[in-house]
Amino acid sequence: MQARLNRAKLTELEPIFYPQSIAVVGVSADEQRIGSQWLRCLVSSGFKGRLYPVNPRGGELFGLRVYRSLRSIPGPVDLVIVCVPRASVLDLLDDCAARRIKAVYFFTAGFTEAGEREWVEVQREMVVRARRGGFRIIGPNCFGVYCPEHGIPFGPFGLQAGVGSVGLISQSSGHMGKILEFGMTRGIGFSKGVSIGNASDLGAADFLEYLALDHKTDIVGVYLEGPRDSRRLLEIMRVASETKPVVVLKGGRSDAGARATAFHTGALAAPAHVWSGALRQAGAVEVHSVDELADTLLVFEKSGRFSQANLAAVCGITDGGGGEAVLVSDACADAGIGVPALTEETGRELVGLLGQVGSVLCNPVDLSQRQRAPQVLRRVMELLAGEPEVDLLAVYENAGVILDAFPREKAEAITATIVDFSNTRRKPVLVILPPGPAETRRLEIERKLSAAGIPVFPSIGRAARAIDNVRGYWRLRARRDEAERKG
Amino acid sequence: MQARLNRAKLTELEPIFYPQSIAVVGVSADEQRIGSQWLRCLVSSGFKGRLYPVNPRGGELFGLRVYRSLRSIPGPVDLVIVCVPRASVLDLLDDCAARRIKAVYFFTAGFTEAGEREWVEVQREMVVRARRGGFRIIGPNCFGVYCPEHGIPFGPFGLQAGVGSVGLISQSSGHMGKILEFGMTRGIGFSKGVSIGNASDLGAADFLEYLALDHKTDIVGVYLEGPRDSRRLLEIMRVASETKPVVVLKGGRSDAGARATAFHTGALAAPAHVWSGALRQAGAVEVHSVDELADTLLVFEKSGRFSQANLAAVCGITDGGGGEAVLVSDACADAGIGVPALTEETGRELVGLLGQVGSVLCNPVDLSQRQRAPQVLRRVMELLAGEPEVDLLAVYENAGVILDAFPREKAEAITATIVDFSNTRRKPVLVILPPGPAETRRLEIERKLSAAGIPVFPSIGRAARAIDNVRGYWRLRARRDEAERKG
Repeated sequence: MQARLNRAKLTELEPIFYPQSIAVVGVSADEQRIGSQWLRCLVSSGFKGRLYPVNPRGGELFGLRVYRSLRSIPGPVDLVIVCVPRASVLDLLDDCAARRIKAVYFFTAGFTEAGEREWVEVQREMVVRARRGGFRIIGPNCFGVYCPEHGIPFGPFGLQAGVGSVGLISQSSGHMGKILEFGMTRGIGFSKGVSIGNASDLGAADFLEYLALDHKTDIVGVYLEGPRDSRRLLEIMRVASETKPVVVLKGGRSDAGARATAFHTGALAAPAHVWSGALRQAGAVEVHSVDELADTLLVFEKSGRFSQANLAAVCGITDGGGGEAVLVSDACADAGIGVPALTEETGRELVGLLGQVGSVLCNPVDLSQRQRAPQVLRRVMELLAGEPEVDLLAVYENAGVILDAFPREKAEAITATIVDFSNTRRKPVLVILPPGPAETRRLEIERKLSAAGIPVFPSIGRAARAIDNVRGYWRLRARRDEAERKG
Repeated sequence: MQARLNRAKLTELEPIFYPQSIAVVGVSADEQRIGSQWLRCLVSSGFKGRLYPVNPRGGELFGLRVYRSLRSIPGPVDLVIVCVPRASVLDLLDDCAARRIKAVYFFTAGFTEAGEREWVEVQREMVVRARRGGFRIIGPNCFGVYCPEHGIPFGPFGLQAGVGSVGLISQSSGHMGKILEFGMTRGIGFSKGVSIGNASDLGAADFLEYLALDHKTDIVGVYLEGPRDSRRLLEIMRVASETKPVVVLKGGRSDAGARATAFHTGALAAPAHVWSGALRQAGAVEVHSVDELADTLLVFEKSGRFSQANLAAVCGITDGGGGEAVLVSDACADAGIGVPALTEETGRELVGLLGQVGSVLCNPVDLSQRQRAPQVLRRVMELLAGEPEVDLLAVYENAGVILDAFPREKAEAITATIVDFSNTRRKPVLVILPPGPAETRRLEIERKLSAAGIPVFPSIGRAARAIDNVRGYWRLRARRDEAERKG
């Protein structure tokens, strides 16, 4: 008996990501205050629906009329963003009910996570009132929704990364912001996302069900601390993982982490190994840091489906390729990534191209002892992509040396060659571009590669772990598909 | 019976790091060629001794007379840098002997690492001629020496990091360059360094003996592939580790890595676990990536001696501290770093400072729910440093959010507060400064912190591993010192 996702979730949560109107409660004449900043970001991000600022004093802000209360807004209100002190939230919820809103989220904090009994009670009462009023709560203690396609930026600072196929659910607004930041520089695109804070009402399970059904979301990234509804979440995760990868970072793995978790979102934690086992059983991909989460989402989004991960690498675009080749091999071995030997035919052509006997039959290929014209790099990439045992190509672009050694045009020609080759889509290409002293120009290169949909990593170790994660998921899928075909 | 270091090594290798004169053989009228570039870097780095460019055609380059041969140079020559094709090296060595030089290093490659028997023979013959001529060879296939104090930059691109107490030995010029690059941005200072390439004559053991004796070197970083003289190297390492930390990255740990190693420096490799065991026995600190090597050298150089590593952290300088605190705790637990609870007295003052009940007795301290004035940050750091169980302080500076949320002056005041506190030297301070979309300004912050001698890390995971490495060494030293005192 297979559990199914409830398609009603799509309709139910649709107004949260695609509201026709938003009220921001808690704006102020001081444009530096959080509520006002939030409103400004919604205005400038081009939100297409109606925006209603709310403050008891009324007035005008960023060209919009400020309403004295939710009740005084003339048209319908789908979504409410709340930045008022915690003492006023209960009254506000009655107003929300009167306006028949669909959902509300609370930047306002100081409830279960603060550990004071009185406010734990208030959080419970909030949910009671929302149920009674027929609407849902996101948070409190969160930044809420991100939906770039619909012009909703993330949080009061208006973070905006590109549109793409990654959906996010996070119990920490900070981590979700960090993932979006990585997305901005490294080209991860997002369908939508939500930070759920204390998850008093809607929780990770609800949003995972929604994202699993959402046809604009191909990959789901999740940051969990201790969800209230673990059992249901894991069950939904199991079903969701059958159709799309679910990548999970579980915070609070350690005792100290669990203690911090309790204070952060008021959640309780199970031991790390219990969580790891449960996530594995649910078919999720577990990661262990925010960096690894971003790296893995990036490879899932950009590199297509691969259940084998044999890597061919090009090192030494300038000198120094020997050491790079050794560490690429070691890092791949540590992550269980194959670095296959090349066929004799390819070896022979490499001898012709690169000259020296020693290095040429070897993968990684080390270009460093010869002329490194862009057309040589191109041909080497073609040869490696033509190898039957090679699934992925990595280019080690040591920008520090390249920018020192080559005139600007030549350094740019190298990047252009990698982009051109990647555009042929013969095999997925990744680039290792370690940081160094020439950061401004290195970041230019990173931006160009990222804009071309090429995953860029600061180290081969991080690339190898991400590749391993992605391979693990697709291998499982391949086995299941095979079993279904036979069964 | 304790092995001793041979103090004669100091005198023998002194002219390699502090030559009074250098000849660069293989300059050309084309200023873009390697030899000419190398010469230019020596000129512009302010090398204080005499420089003699050599090319059969003579002429002048960068204001220096070009000599037609080594033999035609008028004064004594201590050190020779060679960038000629491999076919000419044997003749050149006879000239070196005639000039009674002290040492020579060969950028020239294509010997044992190329795998052609003829050139393996030539490399062997090179050593024979050097022995006969009474001088030493570094390389071939290397960038050779770095000695910033003496105005010798590293390699033909003239890499230069600051002067400090870290000495380097590397079988890869590329990796050594990368470590120097990290040094430039992150403030690691170097006493001297050497890339040894194929290590036909002088090898890692020789230079380790020298650096162990060198009173300007307090920490040694080593990148090894497969040294020829493993037994002697490990023996010297054991003695060296008794007086200063020796941090070792062993490349070629995997089969694939060993294959790449063979082609890189012609070295043979033993299995990884054998090496790991031997390094541990020798008292060395083993690391597993270039990043981890740089991170560990940085903490050794900047953070003093600690054999306990209990960390107190400050998170949430803007919002988002809750998630940061959870991940700091988890990453520390993964690396075996303690995150101790705070004393009641400190807790009480934190309640007064930060207000909210939930988070304040907890380490990491999360500032995010309250006013984050720099003076509050300062007081929190003082309180944490005053905790008897706290050995190190970490500040999580999420530059992306800080730069968005605060006006420039306030963002700068935060950095200045951290620097000021660090300057009081009460307890070592580290900063976690993850990359994001505001890289130009983030790098400004990194530079300021680094210039103040504060280790900066892109993630808490990397910081925690480096701290664990450093703690491991000093703990061992503390035990040994204790045993000696008792014994």
